[in-house]
Amino acid sequence: MTAQAGTGRINQKQRTRTAIVAAARELIGTGAEVTMPLVARAALVSEATAYRYFPDLQSLISEALAGVWPSPAEALAPVADSADPVERTAFACEFLLRGVLAREGAVRAMIAATITKPATATARPGIRFGLIDHALRPLDGTLGATDPEAFAQLKRDLAVVVSAEALFTLMDLCGLDPQTAVASAVRTATTLTQAAVRTIE
Amino acid sequence: MTAQAGTGRINQKQRTRTAIVAAARELIGTGAEVTMPLVARAALVSEATAYRYFPDLQSLISEALAGVWPSPAEALAPVADSADPVERTAFACEFLLRGVLAREGAVRAMIAATITKPATATARPGIRFGLIDHALRPLDGTLGATDPEAFAQLKRDLAVVVSAEALFTLMDLCGLDPQTAVASAVRTATTLTQAAVRTIE
Repeated sequence: MTAQAGTGRINQKQRTRTAIVAAARELIGTGAEVTMPLVARAALVSEATAYRYFPDLQSLISEALAGVWPSPAEALAPVADSADPVERTAFACEFLLRGVLAREGAVRAMIAATITKPATATARPGIRFGLIDHALRPLDGTLGATDPEAFAQLKRDLAVVVSAEALFTLMDLCGLDPQTAVASAVRTATTLTQAAVRTIE
Repeated sequence: MTAQAGTGRINQKQRTRTAIVAAARELIGTGAEVTMPLVARAALVSEATAYRYFPDLQSLISEALAGVWPSPAEALAPVADSADPVERTAFACEFLLRGVLAREGAVRAMIAATITKPATATARPGIRFGLIDHALRPLDGTLGATDPEAFAQLKRDLAVVVSAEALFTLMDLCGLDPQTAVASAVRTATTLTQAAVRTIE
């Protein structure tokens, strides 16, 4: 094999990989169901080829999602001037859940792929944690300093509520439409943050 | 075919079905992973046979779980004399989450099977809803009468927290051990119930 042929093959592989990730990203952006066969078809490759590049759906979705979500500071820019943790948390919750809805099929596929293999959950992007930390910044020097355990508990409270799992529970099991489900989770996050803030007032 | 042969075949089918459900129930009770191949092997039938009786894992788990969970009144018997919705809710949350842990593999399989097909979520047993309603009975005539919307919101708050999804979020994503995860969810459920009770005091 000449060096040129070798480079050509590497380039070809890179193009195929890029095409698969691009197809996945486009499919994710529709909010529709995301499966390996659907991504392969959209990328014009066989399913076997897709699996050669990505051993499982979560590693593909993970790579396709990287860089799609803004940083916590960018996401919370509209409330950057607010020192009210309640307002900031409500905004963060709404932001996350609308983002989940926009990529609903991919997030559902990600949960399905990781829930039976807990060790793989680290492949999930964990967007909520950055958002929650950033939203609660105004409490770093108050509750965070005076009662670190209560602060940590508030973060755990919010990790459960500011979440795709909460959204899908409200939609699938409680039967709420997406907008009502988002509003309900925002309400719950607000109640929890208010309760924590009340302890330092 | 004689009538006797027909009856024999029906009995044979019934025995096979019963054996599959019993094998599933036993596997569920270990808390370990539950898959159709594992259940088929334990029931000494082929995978194809198992699928002939149960088209998917969630219908099998659903049937195997039926009757395994006690009624809400039985589950909450230890707090039957308590009129404190906070104490009752904390108990209900701990009861549910310990039950989920005892059947962890089955519950994870159920979530994996239904999260990408929201319409099938109705196959899930929905144990939490009966427990939450029963735990909040003392509020039926107070908050439930004076502010039905706040009461409904509290039930939605708790549906998100008194849940397998919350437990697995705390374990898989927050990295808590099972006992700490249960304690954290109980704490969150307590905070939410206290906040609602405070509005009527």
